Amino acid sequence: MRFDVFSLFPAVIRPYLEISILQRAIEKGLLEVHLHDIRSFTTDRHHITDDAPFGGGGGMVMKPEPIFTAVESVLGSPPACPVILLTPQGRTYTQQVAAELAAYPHLALLCGRYEGIDERVREHLVTDEISIGDYVLTGGELPALILIDSITRLIPGALGDPDGAQDDSFASGLLEYPHYTRPAEFRGWRVPEVLLSGNHAEIARWRRQQALLRTWKRRPDLLEKADLSDSDRRFLASLTDEKTDQSPST
Amino acid sequence: MRFDVFSLFPAVIRPYLEISILQRAIEKGLLEVHLHDIRSFTTDRHHITDDAPFGGGGGMVMKPEPIFTAVESVLGSPPACPVILLTPQGRTYTQQVAAELAAYPHLALLCGRYEGIDERVREHLVTDEISIGDYVLTGGELPALILIDSITRLIPGALGDPDGAQDDSFASGLLEYPHYTRPAEFRGWRVPEVLLSGNHAEIARWRRQQALLRTWKRRPDLLEKADLSDSDRRFLASLTDEKTDQSPST
Repeated sequence: MRFDVFSLFPAVIRPYLEISILQRAIEKGLLEVHLHDIRSFTTDRHHITDDAPFGGGGGMVMKPEPIFTAVESVLGSPPACPVILLTPQGRTYTQQVAAELAAYPHLALLCGRYEGIDERVREHLVTDEISIGDYVLTGGELPALILIDSITRLIPGALGDPDGAQDDSFASGLLEYPHYTRPAEFRGWRVPEVLLSGNHAEIARWRRQQALLRTWKRRPDLLEKADLSDSDRRFLASLTDEKTDQSPST
Repeated sequence: MRFDVFSLFPAVIRPYLEISILQRAIEKGLLEVHLHDIRSFTTDRHHITDDAPFGGGGGMVMKPEPIFTAVESVLGSPPACPVILLTPQGRTYTQQVAAELAAYPHLALLCGRYEGIDERVREHLVTDEISIGDYVLTGGELPALILIDSITRLIPGALGDPDGAQDDSFASGLLEYPHYTRPAEFRGWRVPEVLLSGNHAEIARWRRQQALLRTWKRRPDLLEKADLSDSDRRFLASLTDEKTDQSPST
């Protein structure tokens, strides 16, 4: 998997690639990340990458020329891979979108800054727009790293544990069950007895029910799309019954 | 505004604090970010921060002791400020949550890693849990930076332009209108004439309609909560009429 990232601040992206799973994926040859400084593709003496917006208003807008030059110099014209703009105006990123993008061998990520980028970049260069969430950030650098991290985790072999990605929140459509490690008792708080029982079937059942319970409590919206068995549904129905029993006044 | 961030990889967080708006907010005394390496609060010879999960299964779990020690050493017991765990199991982060958190003078951010953290941390130390989106990441470091960035932007004086945050996507409940800067013509693509007209009322009207149009096309869910005027509603109604006109077969 190859990423080409175009940014005005590539230096803030690099350190995250040098630790943990991304570092190992790069070492194993599973991941390549090429960082490109948009400023180095300017042709004027002052290396200007932004200018005031037509029509007035606050903030500065990223100029089209350096961005087109940067992307086309590296990836050809038209670029040979999807060019994804990280922007709050894009489609909302989810684990499903991560899986969709993980199927590509090569992605370009374009990081906006300032008030935004010239609309002609969006119209004539960018092929996809992604938002990592409904909030405003200073630039696309953190979102680019979010995509690289979450997509790399889906590359076969990138995680040490081959099943590591399967139990994660969202992978099954549910939030994850609670985790406990040693000590068995910490400040008087004990881990649930079932986890110490050695009964693997009981442990699996407890974990599944905890995942269902947590999702039901915190993110019931996820249950609508989750892949549920008959026994999952019976368990969820029992929760709803309890809730009704406990609130006779409503 | 003060943030205390607890992480196993504080070094990947620092570079982002040293550029752009966060750097300037720190220089102006509006923002303080204290990074704490959880590993330096271990008491064993090997500085162990993780261990195998009780009940078996893949991955490692972050041990409770170093996290409690780190947070309580820095912030007291119980901590004097909210302790936010970054986790896919938390409440979904939005610009509204950013505004809510920006009202605190001090926040602690706890970054998980590996398969997760011991549940007792969640139950007895953490006071809030936040998810930046429905996808799986390797750790909480990027989400912590997302919070710091988006919250700092809301601190009065942190943005160079005092109105900078008001026009952003989501701030008004709508996606942003398109931006254009020089050149007025690039590769034959001209900026919309209205932006060159100098007619400020017309420009304001065009921008508002573009923001409405874009939100209506891309994120109609946002329109339900947006603060709309009567003329906004008439414009949106005209879009719906056009759509109906154009698709007589449905």
